[in-house]
Amino acid sequence: MDVHIITIGDELLIGQVVDTNSAWMGQQLENEGFRATWRTTVGDTERDILEAVDAAMQRAGIVLLTGGLGPTKDDITRKALCRYFGCGLHFSQEVYDNITGLFHTSGRAMNHLTRDQAMVPDACTVIRNRVGTAPCTWFEREGNVLVSMPGVPHEMKWLMTHEVLPRLKKRYGQDTYIRHRTTWVSGYTESALAIALSAFEEALPPFMKLAYLPEPGLIRLRLSAYAGDERQAEKAMDEQREKLHRLLEGHILAGEEGTLEERIGEALLSRNLCMGTAESCTGGRIAAMITSVPGSSRYFTGGIVSYDNEVKHRLLGVPEETLRRYGAVSKPVVEQMASGAIRALGCDCAVATSGIAGPDGGTAEKPVGTVWIAAAWKEKVVSGCYHFSALRETNITRASGTALSMLLDLLANDCRYLEK
Amino acid sequence: MDVHIITIGDELLIGQVVDTNSAWMGQQLENEGFRATWRTTVGDTERDILEAVDAAMQRAGIVLLTGGLGPTKDDITRKALCRYFGCGLHFSQEVYDNITGLFHTSGRAMNHLTRDQAMVPDACTVIRNRVGTAPCTWFEREGNVLVSMPGVPHEMKWLMTHEVLPRLKKRYGQDTYIRHRTTWVSGYTESALAIALSAFEEALPPFMKLAYLPEPGLIRLRLSAYAGDERQAEKAMDEQREKLHRLLEGHILAGEEGTLEERIGEALLSRNLCMGTAESCTGGRIAAMITSVPGSSRYFTGGIVSYDNEVKHRLLGVPEETLRRYGAVSKPVVEQMASGAIRALGCDCAVATSGIAGPDGGTAEKPVGTVWIAAAWKEKVVSGCYHFSALRETNITRASGTALSMLLDLLANDCRYLEK
Repeated sequence: MDVHIITIGDELLIGQVVDTNSAWMGQQLENEGFRATWRTTVGDTERDILEAVDAAMQRAGIVLLTGGLGPTKDDITRKALCRYFGCGLHFSQEVYDNITGLFHTSGRAMNHLTRDQAMVPDACTVIRNRVGTAPCTWFEREGNVLVSMPGVPHEMKWLMTHEVLPRLKKRYGQDTYIRHRTTWVSGYTESALAIALSAFEEALPPFMKLAYLPEPGLIRLRLSAYAGDERQAEKAMDEQREKLHRLLEGHILAGEEGTLEERIGEALLSRNLCMGTAESCTGGRIAAMITSVPGSSRYFTGGIVSYDNEVKHRLLGVPEETLRRYGAVSKPVVEQMASGAIRALGCDCAVATSGIAGPDGGTAEKPVGTVWIAAAWKEKVVSGCYHFSALRETNITRASGTALSMLLDLLANDCRYLEK
Repeated sequence: MDVHIITIGDELLIGQVVDTNSAWMGQQLENEGFRATWRTTVGDTERDILEAVDAAMQRAGIVLLTGGLGPTKDDITRKALCRYFGCGLHFSQEVYDNITGLFHTSGRAMNHLTRDQAMVPDACTVIRNRVGTAPCTWFEREGNVLVSMPGVPHEMKWLMTHEVLPRLKKRYGQDTYIRHRTTWVSGYTESALAIALSAFEEALPPFMKLAYLPEPGLIRLRLSAYAGDERQAEKAMDEQREKLHRLLEGHILAGEEGTLEERIGEALLSRNLCMGTAESCTGGRIAAMITSVPGSSRYFTGGIVSYDNEVKHRLLGVPEETLRRYGAVSKPVVEQMASGAIRALGCDCAVATSGIAGPDGGTAEKPVGTVWIAAAWKEKVVSGCYHFSALRETNITRASGTALSMLLDLLANDCRYLEK
């Protein structure tokens, strides 16, 4: 069953807020056999909301809306939905009690705007939002379903998990079984990999699809199956995946779903190792990536963000003489940061970064985007110098990804680097 | 001039990748007086791309497309555009030379798929992509413009900055002057703030708009003006903003555009202070937020991610006895982490977090979502215990935001906390 997601809010269009809701919703829908096939973002404008809802209702059997349900004047989703479904509002004692309860728990004072959130459209089923004041509303028209949820991420996630997905599954059963499997490949450019796999790709059954997702230092290959029957989806996936892995032998870093940081976690757990980080230009991003994974406390002891050279010296033990002679953005410093992290944080392996993220601080010799990256495992240390871009955010993202790829490669291939 | 953004890729719909491109594009467009009014995301499916392009070309004067330009089979944007504009492909020597140059620089080998990227649609103007192999293409039909760019963020950003925005400005001049100003407000719920500002909001001129963006621990108020004339936009903004700030006296944390981390930077620079972080459950996120700001090395000395209690003890100086007696998620530990960060990192102030991000690790007494947060400035330390949610990502995000709000409040209001 196809799903069209609509996210509402001027702050999304002008880029004040990044829309992470719809990516999360897409993941959850896929897991349950629904397909997010289309997504629209519109502002807090009744005409645009109506147009988006109308187009979506014509296109997909299920329409999920988020945003525009707050108590303030700029939130007009409820009004637009009343217009679309040709209905009015009525007071819901149930919603009112829910709001009163939430206000009571948090010790905040109730007011008329909050009370107004208990006015709900006549044409819908109201779903209780246990974690926020705006109710979730479920509309039906000609066999199609539209569900409107708050845009606050934790409220939407709670409602999707506990109410909306279970109800959708109950209503629609499951007509498509979807499987995605990802394989992490190193040592190819995207086009060279596509050539190596062209015969494989041609021979895929019609309900399967291969996608190339380039990352810093590696490529994620995503194999997808969309079948009417669970066994067919599983069987075809297993067969094609085995074929793919035979073709790519020696180039596979990991053969699982998920993110680079999850792969690192698995590689560490399977070897019973723990890691740490020593970050300069990535400023904590690598530690944040690693610790975004549930259970990472089993293999991550900690990290040091050493922006100041004094911190590199005192906490990571980089000699002042080395910093003076080579500068912070250099091979000796980044390698000593990695080794220093192992000592200071009591771990088995570590990554380190030192570079010029920009926009300022570049020189002719070391322009913005120059980053030294190291990975260390006990006494082994490998490092490389990279030249990314002129953009701070890009440099931080690519340096972080490359550092994690380097460590994954070091763990997966043991001493390969050292033999070079 | 209205702009419709279309992002293309199955990985966006199924949530394997979060679409950060369109938020960035929205920001840049607004800065130059264009308005991003609509955004669509579709998969790598010709029918959907054509439908999205057709709807967008009817709606907006400018359509910006990203994605689906890679050398592999799943990338079909170019084909869809040829179909839409009714044209074929031809070989471009210029594009070919660009690709050859890029491959030469990076020492990679050319192949026929990469060569194929030099085939460009007949109906477009080709814009050189100096940072990648897929060219940018510019189409016109009945006075409307469509520009297709690669989806790789650093390539899209380079093209927008150096080519697309300058060309759009040259072609359209500027018909709308847009100003956004944000005010950071503490001490109100969203609805209480809306009530306090209802008369102000009613009296706004018709070309101005007020929006409420709730954040952990505070609310961002965004005042926007869309005027046909620069002076009118500036003047109205200045007047209304002054009025707004008078109404909110004593509740304003910062009165500027941007993010919480930028406001922290300004507060520190204006007082000539520097800061550090000691993070447990936020795992480096706070340091990453702070260092995402250009120039943050002037006020951020460093951070310690102390996942392991041993790291809390050795690097931050939290006594083992305190950890044993109160547990890591406690007031004494988080306060000592903050003070310890000031000593270890040689800074004037610091924030600290210690909590149970989940999904595991919760107990009856300290369930998942319990987070202790502290902010310290020299000898002053303030702290609080928060109960966020059952979701790891939400807990990390809200704890990080709350920690920064706490520090901003401490810096803005000096001793207010201590008097309580």
